[in-house]
Amino acid sequence: MTSEDRAPGRPRSREADAAILETALELLIESGATATSIEQVARRAGVTRATVYRRFPDKTRLLIAALEAAYGDPPPIPEIADVEQLVKSWATVVADPRQRRLLRRVYGAIEDLPELAKAYQDLFGKDRDQARRDVFARARDSGHLPAGVDLEVLLDLLTGAIWQHLATRPDTCTPAETEDFLRDVLRQVGYRPRPEEGTAP
Amino acid sequence: MTSEDRAPGRPRSREADAAILETALELLIESGATATSIEQVARRAGVTRATVYRRFPDKTRLLIAALEAAYGDPPPIPEIADVEQLVKSWATVVADPRQRRLLRRVYGAIEDLPELAKAYQDLFGKDRDQARRDVFARARDSGHLPAGVDLEVLLDLLTGAIWQHLATRPDTCTPAETEDFLRDVLRQVGYRPRPEEGTAP
Repeated sequence: MTSEDRAPGRPRSREADAAILETALELLIESGATATSIEQVARRAGVTRATVYRRFPDKTRLLIAALEAAYGDPPPIPEIADVEQLVKSWATVVADPRQRRLLRRVYGAIEDLPELAKAYQDLFGKDRDQARRDVFARARDSGHLPAGVDLEVLLDLLTGAIWQHLATRPDTCTPAETEDFLRDVLRQVGYRPRPEEGTAP
Repeated sequence: MTSEDRAPGRPRSREADAAILETALELLIESGATATSIEQVARRAGVTRATVYRRFPDKTRLLIAALEAAYGDPPPIPEIADVEQLVKSWATVVADPRQRRLLRRVYGAIEDLPELAKAYQDLFGKDRDQARRDVFARARDSGHLPAGVDLEVLLDLLTGAIWQHLATRPDTCTPAETEDFLRDVLRQVGYRPRPEEGTAP
């Protein structure tokens, strides 16, 4: 067997990979992690169950791989200049109906597939949270946030506000409305877009 | 037919009601709203499907009735003296493993049974949120919260923080740890247990 003998199979294999991962993400958003099965993914992706199982030992690993494929592994860390830019980039994600459904599905999986929620958190959380912490630290140092702000609590509080937005605001909310929501939350913790406005409520 | 003729059936009927509602709540917590079926509820409660359907036209109404039965309809509005007491009563609920699972199941149902999440919000939200708003307004007026605090945003932010706690903290967290978490969040929005400490970070 030379490498030429195997070559023709590789693009097809890559196609099957992509179809399986895209279908898994689709089904996660449509039906949720618990209701999604390897059988369904195989059927809709047009491959056999064996083809899926050869690549992914179980549903959780398949769904984690689907998230990684969609969002990059590791996902590119966005360059965030300041809090305003962070609010804008966050609002773009949170106002996207597909992302909203995916995020709620990830939350909904905490009970039955905790590894999936954990993987999502690791995938997005670790590096991005560090980038966000850095933005907030700079904002604090330049007087846009109070000197005594607790960066960890602030991150929890903003992530929580996003869960609350996903739970209570309509999926038709615009990025601008979502930015306003996030800025309202930030204002409560003493964020001032311009430090000279520091005394205004 | 006199009322005496029907009387013997009524305790049994009430027993069936209670069994159905308790089982529905159990299954909601165990398996989630999507995975729970009227069939399962009937089987585990030891009644026929027809008995369930005679009382509840569909699964969503059954699950809503189960929440109402468990939490009162309308649920008693707790007397909350101040923010400290609110934090304590909130922490008691949020640190209870069964409540944690139920709350995550309610969040997890937003996508497939939005009426259930809505009913839960109405059941707990409306009157309780007003009671909470009153507590925060008094805290603001007595200098425990900043004069410019936005009560609506504060409620969103605290509810969000609870979703974040349910998503990221272990179910073994104690009420005391949960109180600390809530107080940390409140401190970021300028809450001071004693107004004379107002200048400390």
